[in-house]
Amino acid sequence: MVFRLVGTLSLLLGLLMLIPALISASYGESDVPAFLLSMCISVCIGLVLRYLARDGGHVGPKECFAVVTFGWVTAAALGALPSLFHGTFATFTDAFFEAMSGLTTTGASVLTNIEAQPHGILFWRSFLHWLGGMGIIVLFIAVLPSLGIGATKLFRAEVPGPTPERLEPRIRDTAKKLWAIYVGISLLQTVLLHIGGMTLFDALTHTFGTVATGGFSTRTASVGAYNSVFIEIVMIVFMFIAGCNFALHFRMLQGKRDCLFKDAEFKTYLLLIAAATLVVTLNLRAHVFPEMSSALRGAAFQVTSIMTTTGFATADFDAWPSLSKTILLVLMFVGGCTGSTGGAIKVSRIMIAFKHGYREALSFIHPRAVTVTKVNGSVVSPNVLNSVLGFLFLYSLIFVIGTLFMSSLGLDIISAGSSVAATLGNIGPGLGLVGPTLSYATIPISGKWVLSLCMLLGRLEIFSVLVLFLPEFWRRH
Amino acid sequence: MVFRLVGTLSLLLGLLMLIPALISASYGESDVPAFLLSMCISVCIGLVLRYLARDGGHVGPKECFAVVTFGWVTAAALGALPSLFHGTFATFTDAFFEAMSGLTTTGASVLTNIEAQPHGILFWRSFLHWLGGMGIIVLFIAVLPSLGIGATKLFRAEVPGPTPERLEPRIRDTAKKLWAIYVGISLLQTVLLHIGGMTLFDALTHTFGTVATGGFSTRTASVGAYNSVFIEIVMIVFMFIAGCNFALHFRMLQGKRDCLFKDAEFKTYLLLIAAATLVVTLNLRAHVFPEMSSALRGAAFQVTSIMTTTGFATADFDAWPSLSKTILLVLMFVGGCTGSTGGAIKVSRIMIAFKHGYREALSFIHPRAVTVTKVNGSVVSPNVLNSVLGFLFLYSLIFVIGTLFMSSLGLDIISAGSSVAATLGNIGPGLGLVGPTLSYATIPISGKWVLSLCMLLGRLEIFSVLVLFLPEFWRRH
Repeated sequence: MVFRLVGTLSLLLGLLMLIPALISASYGESDVPAFLLSMCISVCIGLVLRYLARDGGHVGPKECFAVVTFGWVTAAALGALPSLFHGTFATFTDAFFEAMSGLTTTGASVLTNIEAQPHGILFWRSFLHWLGGMGIIVLFIAVLPSLGIGATKLFRAEVPGPTPERLEPRIRDTAKKLWAIYVGISLLQTVLLHIGGMTLFDALTHTFGTVATGGFSTRTASVGAYNSVFIEIVMIVFMFIAGCNFALHFRMLQGKRDCLFKDAEFKTYLLLIAAATLVVTLNLRAHVFPEMSSALRGAAFQVTSIMTTTGFATADFDAWPSLSKTILLVLMFVGGCTGSTGGAIKVSRIMIAFKHGYREALSFIHPRAVTVTKVNGSVVSPNVLNSVLGFLFLYSLIFVIGTLFMSSLGLDIISAGSSVAATLGNIGPGLGLVGPTLSYATIPISGKWVLSLCMLLGRLEIFSVLVLFLPEFWRRH
Repeated sequence: MVFRLVGTLSLLLGLLMLIPALISASYGESDVPAFLLSMCISVCIGLVLRYLARDGGHVGPKECFAVVTFGWVTAAALGALPSLFHGTFATFTDAFFEAMSGLTTTGASVLTNIEAQPHGILFWRSFLHWLGGMGIIVLFIAVLPSLGIGATKLFRAEVPGPTPERLEPRIRDTAKKLWAIYVGISLLQTVLLHIGGMTLFDALTHTFGTVATGGFSTRTASVGAYNSVFIEIVMIVFMFIAGCNFALHFRMLQGKRDCLFKDAEFKTYLLLIAAATLVVTLNLRAHVFPEMSSALRGAAFQVTSIMTTTGFATADFDAWPSLSKTILLVLMFVGGCTGSTGGAIKVSRIMIAFKHGYREALSFIHPRAVTVTKVNGSVVSPNVLNSVLGFLFLYSLIFVIGTLFMSSLGLDIISAGSSVAATLGNIGPGLGLVGPTLSYATIPISGKWVLSLCMLLGRLEIFSVLVLFLPEFWRRH
């Protein structure tokens, strides 16, 4: 089954490369052959894999994790081909890093002169954001004829959050609804950005970067290059929307208007963004911008961009005062909501851990009282609680190990730590050497591979990838 | 009961001030009146509190937390008096910070010229280390006639680690044994340091700083001032011993030699120190010291000092290469063993969380298998596991909130983060502005109070202090 699905994925990706090829052809640019060659390779690999695959076979949890993880790695490897063949990057490492950064909606770039690239290449990397945002496997489930009992497991392995919700009884219908909402939001934002003065091409690529909480821009100065209040407001709103649970959008569309403020995670998410924006605004007002409006504009955009793990920039926040930088660094760990396209730990996990910590403190006062942790009025089961707390520890552990590795390459602590935080959380820009005005181009090769792994671990929420490293995974039973 | 015990504590502390008063008198120094005045105040407060106290009353968990927390705050406030009256510090903030740093065995100092202080003052701050190391409440339990059923709860609220062990069936005997071992180790180290060339005064004060994993030195350059390999080796060995579970020392003295390497926490502790020393040695060898011996000497001392949360320094590790600094920063969070005098998270908690994370990953492969987390061959109960994971989250949360606060005072991220890590973990020196060659004197007043709170939270392992901030604590039931 692993071969069959990864093969289909390669086929699909190969066919999708036709879009950037056509775009480049319409601009009369030189990267068309690179796309056609990549297409051939992808399609061939896809066909070979499907030929090798045997029918049937047991679909257990192991197979699902293998499909999801190998599927993503294959997609990144194939997605790297066009920019490698075109000569955008000299090494496969850089091309793979950029493609993985695209697919995982990280937005960390090793491109130093973005404007010099042909439209096809720029479209492709933003398009990878869009595919990875809602999830290539979720797309699969929506598009392909029934995958059988494996679909639910695959869905759970890719959709973020401790307890992703089903919108419909059948998982395939859920996947279809999610993609439909996603496409709808994307169309709306593209139109608005185009009205705001962006070319259709820029509007489309920036929409991909926004709704997928990715962060690749077609400008080296990112969104700051447009210097338009309207565009920034549109992007703030859509980054915010992309960081919400898509199940909420679904229910809003069904007319259940009150569902928003009944959802504890949404309220916390809104509160955190509002509070962080307020403090950063005051901090910027005191030290950087004399006018309140500039401070608020900069703070609202950057806080929303980092908290939703998008990573667009309108300012060099690495030059901001210490408090603002620390707040952004902390937000890099929080991330969006369950079932959103945002990365990092997710608001709901932090909430569950916080309530657990509070309950533990209470149990010191009333040692014999039996208490439970509740979210949205329903009890968090011990299984979910254990999984959330285990996730938090592993996330911290991977952060620590990654930072140790990056600092062994000679990066200072801030650059090392923020590069790992920004890739593990699928954000993009960090602080120091990987700050918003710089790129990941200066990171040594081994560092790029480790950060690519961090992106994958972050996007697939650790467990799906980590289990493949356990000896127990490869043991037959 | 709260009044009675805190009163007795004040009395005891007042009487103990006689020792530094006698020392200063013997050196003919000017701080004798300051000690006598502080003595009078402490004794008076003690008598008044004991007079106000009613007999009997309910001894519940609430009362225990109140005794321990208020007891420690009172002790720090009274311990601050001598240096305040003598004029060592101009403000009560500085005097309180230094006394709290002493009692909690942090070793973060606001003194800038240590050699200029009289012997009494220097003895007193190191003596506070020694009292706080094994615990003033544990001393109480050992010294005072039966406290009744409250003693066990008090003991648990002060002795570090998720599951502190009893050495004897009666808690008072346990406390006596612990203090006896502590005194024995201290005597041995004092003799060895004296043989190594220190004056008896220096040997005694540095012993207090070592066995309590404190870190106050009588020299501004800390242990580096002696530049003696013998002294450094003695201190490495005794810091290591102080960071071990004292229950292990007890069993070693009983002749159970094999208990050491049967203890999973001890093995992990040893392994972590050895591994960190190895990597830091190689890193220093490559960038700082040409000779292997100097690199090993510097690395072994600093790794042991930080990991055991002592905080003595033989080098300016803030100037070391990035990897070494990152390793030391990570070790600041690990700390010593359960039931040691060391601070921070403790090795056993990290182990339990690690095994839990591993088990959670396994449960993704075998979703229906019922597995348990084991340490030392016995199952970790869900209560202990929940408490450990709750502790880890709250520790991280306090670290984040503290860092945000410190950076709001204008400290850069590294200084803000490491000052909170170094006080919350009871280590002492951090990086940047609070690096080993600098002091906490430049921190703004509000920052000193917040860091003092961090020291207390760290020493009493969060819950005992935190519960006093919960509204539920003050509600009558």
